[in-house]
Amino acid sequence: MNEPAIDGGRLWASLMELAQLGATPAGGCNRQALTEIDAQGRALFTSWAETIGCRVHTDAIGNLFARRDGTDPDAPAILLGSHLDTQPTGGRFDGVYGVLAGLEVLRTLEDLGLHTRSPVIVASWTNEEGARFPPAMMGSGAWAGEFDLEATYATADKDGVTVREALSAIGALGETPAEPFPVKGAFELHIEQGPILEAEQKTIGVVTGVQGIRWYDLTLTGKPCHAGPTPMEVREDPVQTLGEVLTRLYPIATDHAPWGRATVGDLVTEPGSRNTVPERIRVTVDLRHPDQEVLEAMHERLGALCTEQNRRGAVQVDLEEIWYSPAIRFDDGCLDAIRTAVERTGDPSMEIVSGAGHDAAYVSRVAPTAMIFIPCRDGLSHNEAEYAKPEDITAGANVLLNAVLALDAS
Amino acid sequence: MNEPAIDGGRLWASLMELAQLGATPAGGCNRQALTEIDAQGRALFTSWAETIGCRVHTDAIGNLFARRDGTDPDAPAILLGSHLDTQPTGGRFDGVYGVLAGLEVLRTLEDLGLHTRSPVIVASWTNEEGARFPPAMMGSGAWAGEFDLEATYATADKDGVTVREALSAIGALGETPAEPFPVKGAFELHIEQGPILEAEQKTIGVVTGVQGIRWYDLTLTGKPCHAGPTPMEVREDPVQTLGEVLTRLYPIATDHAPWGRATVGDLVTEPGSRNTVPERIRVTVDLRHPDQEVLEAMHERLGALCTEQNRRGAVQVDLEEIWYSPAIRFDDGCLDAIRTAVERTGDPSMEIVSGAGHDAAYVSRVAPTAMIFIPCRDGLSHNEAEYAKPEDITAGANVLLNAVLALDAS
Repeated sequence: MNEPAIDGGRLWASLMELAQLGATPAGGCNRQALTEIDAQGRALFTSWAETIGCRVHTDAIGNLFARRDGTDPDAPAILLGSHLDTQPTGGRFDGVYGVLAGLEVLRTLEDLGLHTRSPVIVASWTNEEGARFPPAMMGSGAWAGEFDLEATYATADKDGVTVREALSAIGALGETPAEPFPVKGAFELHIEQGPILEAEQKTIGVVTGVQGIRWYDLTLTGKPCHAGPTPMEVREDPVQTLGEVLTRLYPIATDHAPWGRATVGDLVTEPGSRNTVPERIRVTVDLRHPDQEVLEAMHERLGALCTEQNRRGAVQVDLEEIWYSPAIRFDDGCLDAIRTAVERTGDPSMEIVSGAGHDAAYVSRVAPTAMIFIPCRDGLSHNEAEYAKPEDITAGANVLLNAVLALDAS
Repeated sequence: MNEPAIDGGRLWASLMELAQLGATPAGGCNRQALTEIDAQGRALFTSWAETIGCRVHTDAIGNLFARRDGTDPDAPAILLGSHLDTQPTGGRFDGVYGVLAGLEVLRTLEDLGLHTRSPVIVASWTNEEGARFPPAMMGSGAWAGEFDLEATYATADKDGVTVREALSAIGALGETPAEPFPVKGAFELHIEQGPILEAEQKTIGVVTGVQGIRWYDLTLTGKPCHAGPTPMEVREDPVQTLGEVLTRLYPIATDHAPWGRATVGDLVTEPGSRNTVPERIRVTVDLRHPDQEVLEAMHERLGALCTEQNRRGAVQVDLEEIWYSPAIRFDDGCLDAIRTAVERTGDPSMEIVSGAGHDAAYVSRVAPTAMIFIPCRDGLSHNEAEYAKPEDITAGANVLLNAVLALDAS
């Protein structure tokens, strides 16, 4: 057997050709899910896959699957892929890279006349971004049974167009049920969307899991009063309490370095007048950690902070958890296949945890799954300036190829 | 000479009758400046003043003056009054009390056949609230020469109606120039609009001055990033910095208790998304103190706090002062007259500083001036639930009457 290797030039050319569909003047991409431009992207991917003899089909939620058969008709599939849709001001790599690198793996196998025992399927999951239709990761979530299909069909965009209508309009309402098929292992290759690999000068991130996320609405309620006459000592000022809460909130994450995260992304004061002590301030809190138990401890500590703050002063501190996405630990078998691949390619690598959600998170609920990251410039993503270096693009695809071969051989 | 005393029942009845003009279902008042309802209030006040033989005239900015002559045609006037306009959801006492208590002083002098040496003039200043036409204290400000008359005339409400048009429409565009006349002393009687007198169980506040006020826009600028992937130690999170700033901001006021004030009334995050570390947070800061030098020290300390914070971290802290209203120290002669009055009436009293702006602040720039406060329930004002007890209403008017007599005799 030859040492199999990706044709990096061909992969880059495919990426740049697909990036023409929805190209923005600033060098990014606007190819939102279930639009006419999305349909063009799907058609291009389909034609490329059919050119190398793959069978392509679409399921009931519009997920596209390009299949290259294996030698054993009973073997479960090796599942690759990511998504072709983008944010409204998205980049050229987020998602698309995982789909086209999967296609490039199939092309390479075909070029080299290599036959895997398992079929290899490259998926393009519908509407990962959730920009036009919420929620994000719609296609993989529906496929994995996380979302009710009829409810998902009924979801409308801001013009009142439903998912079912949009699927139908672009010819993506397939007949195959949106449900899992037998999978030996799934790999999603993606740009990191964070700064760690670049900072650590690593080409490959072996993604061992996805951070658990807990979202809260924190409300501080005091007593509004005029900024002038009311003495400080009788005030019930929620902003004053906010200062104390914030200084005690961030250590919840930093005490669990390097993986703990705490973010306050939005603050809204009511009534929000310059010379009135606010009655209320609404604060969003986002806590993350890849270890379920540590995240639970962070959650407990945030609750205790609020309880303690309520004991300290007259301002009422209310904490409501509004969303919880448990931490995901990826499959050891898939991770071992990636580690073996990295040994073969010799790329500088490190183990890493994904801070963002990905289709792989839903896929992992029904199939052994892991992810591979490559660096992106300045950690930028969801941004037209998003960029990954051609040599990293090639390196990631080679690791993907070798991981497929390693898993197939296991 | 009889011991002169206000008829509290008559004053209360006048207040309640005027409160019918613009009465709201919740028990408050909506009698905004230069509206048809304001015109009705002006007419009622005018008719009451004329009934007791006063001459009433309107100046070029609509200020109403009801004059009761003194025995010395060359003596400068004693000037009373406040304003008849209200906030859109205002109360029945803010401003109106000072005008009608002034009128009640004239009625009492008339009833008792008392003749002062100075003429006593009761003013109703135009548009103290600034709710329909900014700025607040328009009439007294124009009269005192703080505002240019033509520019003030050109000020439009949100429907595009100018002050000049509105004055003309309600017949309040008088021919007398809006400019100071000789004043021996001016007294403005007002509800406190704060909780201090009630808390201290005092009926009368001898108002020695008005707090100085400094307004700032504080901007914290960091680097936006995704709430998941970006490690805490590389973040430039303006909300994290805000926590530190807030905990160091409030002591600037509390270290200057009991008169120091610090208020953050509004906070705006950009972009304000739950799972993004904000790029920027805009913060309003309001610092107050009645002593000019202390306020200057507070100002210096806020600047130092920002400088120091800029040394500490990557988040950029920018402080811009956008308004400065110097502290006012009221006139000793007027204050002595009030103190003498309180000795005569025997009311429980304390010296106090006004935290809010009043017409008296502008009047004080061109004439000896002081203010008298009475308590209001829970310190509430600019609120339909605003309330002052009838016995306090009477007590305040008696102090006003006695202050007039004391100043006239001095």
